Amino acid sequence: MAKESFVEQIADIEKDFPRWYTDVVIKTGLVDYGPVKGTMVIRPYGYAIWENIQSELDRRFKATGHKNAYFPLLIPMSFFTKEAEHVEGFAPEVAVVTHAGGEELAEPLAIRPTSETIFGSMYSKWIQSYRDLPVLINQWANVMRWEKTTRPFLRTSEFLWQEGHTAHATEEEAEEETMKMLGVYKEFAENCLAIPVICGKKTEKEKFAGAVATYGMEAMMKDGKSLQAGTSHFLGQNFAKAFDIKFLDKDGVQKHVYTSSWGVSTRLIGALIMAHGDERGLLLPPVVAPTQVVIVPIAAKKGGVLEKCAEVKDLLEKAGVRVALDDTDASPGWKFNEWELKGVPLRIELGPRDIEAGKALIFRRDTLVKEEYSLEGIAEEVIGLLNTVQKDMLEAARVRRDKHVVDADSLAGILEGVENGNFVKAGWCGCRECEDKIKAETAATARVISDDTAEKCAVCGKKAQSKVYFARAY
Amino acid sequence: MAKESFVEQIADIEKDFPRWYTDVVIKTGLVDYGPVKGTMVIRPYGYAIWENIQSELDRRFKATGHKNAYFPLLIPMSFFTKEAEHVEGFAPEVAVVTHAGGEELAEPLAIRPTSETIFGSMYSKWIQSYRDLPVLINQWANVMRWEKTTRPFLRTSEFLWQEGHTAHATEEEAEEETMKMLGVYKEFAENCLAIPVICGKKTEKEKFAGAVATYGMEAMMKDGKSLQAGTSHFLGQNFAKAFDIKFLDKDGVQKHVYTSSWGVSTRLIGALIMAHGDERGLLLPPVVAPTQVVIVPIAAKKGGVLEKCAEVKDLLEKAGVRVALDDTDASPGWKFNEWELKGVPLRIELGPRDIEAGKALIFRRDTLVKEEYSLEGIAEEVIGLLNTVQKDMLEAARVRRDKHVVDADSLAGILEGVENGNFVKAGWCGCRECEDKIKAETAATARVISDDTAEKCAVCGKKAQSKVYFARAY
Repeated sequence: MAKESFVEQIADIEKDFPRWYTDVVIKTGLVDYGPVKGTMVIRPYGYAIWENIQSELDRRFKATGHKNAYFPLLIPMSFFTKEAEHVEGFAPEVAVVTHAGGEELAEPLAIRPTSETIFGSMYSKWIQSYRDLPVLINQWANVMRWEKTTRPFLRTSEFLWQEGHTAHATEEEAEEETMKMLGVYKEFAENCLAIPVICGKKTEKEKFAGAVATYGMEAMMKDGKSLQAGTSHFLGQNFAKAFDIKFLDKDGVQKHVYTSSWGVSTRLIGALIMAHGDERGLLLPPVVAPTQVVIVPIAAKKGGVLEKCAEVKDLLEKAGVRVALDDTDASPGWKFNEWELKGVPLRIELGPRDIEAGKALIFRRDTLVKEEYSLEGIAEEVIGLLNTVQKDMLEAARVRRDKHVVDADSLAGILEGVENGNFVKAGWCGCRECEDKIKAETAATARVISDDTAEKCAVCGKKAQSKVYFARAY
Repeated sequence: MAKESFVEQIADIEKDFPRWYTDVVIKTGLVDYGPVKGTMVIRPYGYAIWENIQSELDRRFKATGHKNAYFPLLIPMSFFTKEAEHVEGFAPEVAVVTHAGGEELAEPLAIRPTSETIFGSMYSKWIQSYRDLPVLINQWANVMRWEKTTRPFLRTSEFLWQEGHTAHATEEEAEEETMKMLGVYKEFAENCLAIPVICGKKTEKEKFAGAVATYGMEAMMKDGKSLQAGTSHFLGQNFAKAFDIKFLDKDGVQKHVYTSSWGVSTRLIGALIMAHGDERGLLLPPVVAPTQVVIVPIAAKKGGVLEKCAEVKDLLEKAGVRVALDDTDASPGWKFNEWELKGVPLRIELGPRDIEAGKALIFRRDTLVKEEYSLEGIAEEVIGLLNTVQKDMLEAARVRRDKHVVDADSLAGILEGVENGNFVKAGWCGCRECEDKIKAETAATARVISDDTAEKCAVCGKKAQSKVYFARAY
């Protein structure tokens, strides 16, 4: 077991978490600031993570019967006013096109902040009979929400996401879909991102504008704050009525459909960074890491070293591993730092003596442990190790998360809990006043409602509805 | 060999090609009109074709060393004015955001019609040294060009595309990249879309606004018109100078880079439809067909039929074939029409007698030939047939194309040629006047410059530079 000196080019994660985040996203080449305030350029290293996220999710969406489509970017402003809560929630954030083709438009057009309205308008045209249901469509798209304070991946005026929009004959089916997709997100977050999420219903205050109920998944970041990593909404008949989406049911009666929508975005990249990163920089779980293994030659100029490294690279590639060989002129130490900063899960070190002994050193970025492996069967070893790293990262995050969920039964207790970087479970009566008071005094918001019961509300002392997870959030 | 009666629900392709096109795209569920004039909704069947196109192209881009990234949708209007020709070409078509977040913006922002300017602005920041070159980035994105007359896939205000943007140390390298990507497009068009394209340099008049040289690939549609299916631009130092993209070369001298850009779009779906479609509707080449094989049970209620169909479906799926089993209540004849309309390359018909004899009938959508195959080894047979269909479709398109390329040595000859639905090769002196005259009198434009020499310009009779392909175009 060897320890290396760590990277000095990024801020100390313990002392200045926000600067650490900015340093990491910029210096690893994940992202850059776009020329328009609040926009980001997702650079190849960041986009490759997104491609891996997309491919994992897309497979799951298709396996659950969804198809992809593409709906227009521009939505007539009038569409938003058709659903009262929706317009209130989104109108203040939209970017508006007023001129096009050299002329002023008759009606201003919004750049989609989300697409319930335009899906609704098309669904009302496509859906006539119960035979047309369910409609299960997803789209991968860019959306825009004009934000005052922005941070790469976490909050930018434009971001990439997927949004599923489904229509069903019955309330039960739409609710089932809502929960099914929350389950898909949770399984994906745990098995692909190695992030143990907490799922549950949102309070009325925190729900999506226009939803009957919103379910969220919350991820704990290393500073103890929560990041809403995905949401699934049961929309009831709100949008069906606003857009007149009706079908002729088996019983010969015209009925409004029930709809759901659900989405995750490039925020997930921010979640990955802040859930796993450490003093050396990024730490990426193998399933979504653009490069899973880097090979660093030691004494690369010695005869046979580079050739052997290339051979190992070839072997790993053939076994389906995403592998890079760093054959640049930099020193091994410099390369170690660089690839650790970039969060590559495994590093193989190969020098003349290793080759002679038929061995290689493999360094695990997650545990910082370096061990010797036989070159014979190296591909199988690496694949096994990648699986182990993936599982261990989830387990480590779970242990960390569980350690930082505390209970409280008073406002002071909630404050103390979040001040110490925890999620706090506390009884809540269900009223908006108490929720607002918690936010005002602790800067924590209700993340999701838990299944646990409580006797009393931590604020007013009245009978509690249930326990709620409170945390400061991104 | 059996012939079926053909679909009556679409216009006659011979009599009304434009209506045939509209009928096909709408009735097969490829696309629908969006609520804002000039926009389209790409429905699941159309989007699945796009996904297959993306996956084939993306693989090729990565194999040639390119990486994906994502640049912002909104570009400051001032960026466009930095390259004189570029602003002239694109400013009239842009959609402009003037308000966002409830306020008027200090500077209006354009929705990207293409991204040379914003890539340029970032490249000037990222590129410092010859060590940073080449930069080879592609993005998959939506773009917007406000058009007066629109048609689904062919010309819509918003469309999806990919745009590659590369920067190089030398002119030779940038030119090589330009030609390499044109080659990638051509190989893809032929082997995946089964469309035999004609590639070559564009005239000054037809080139991209801001390019030194544009190379295009032109595809012949069934009405004899040409569709520009992809372009690759050598941009010289035009954008490098406009955005000050400089690097310190090996010789210690600061130099401007040379750039290229290249793109194809959802227009390719329009090309597929019009290059292969026929009186029965769509005809999709297997490589990009969302469904490659449909299984239609005959006398489905007879014992064992549906089970056998499901078994065959399972076999084909396991062999990697995209297959659907149509077990709806409709009659076989109705299903035949429906799936032929949708252009599915192969249809397997399975009834009680076939099953008893251990056989299946397979219908080829391209040749309309139906033949008997043994159920034993059906997966291999189907895969072989799909390959054959793919090759035969290219060959059939090539024969058709070659039949419709004619020579002319006068303006009257060009007019006659295009009136009869041909591409016309004619000598051209190289001057804009003659090019404009051809357009005015024949409605044909110079598609690409061929490698063939000619003695005289077909218009003015002066010495010809070369032969040019003229055609009416989408």
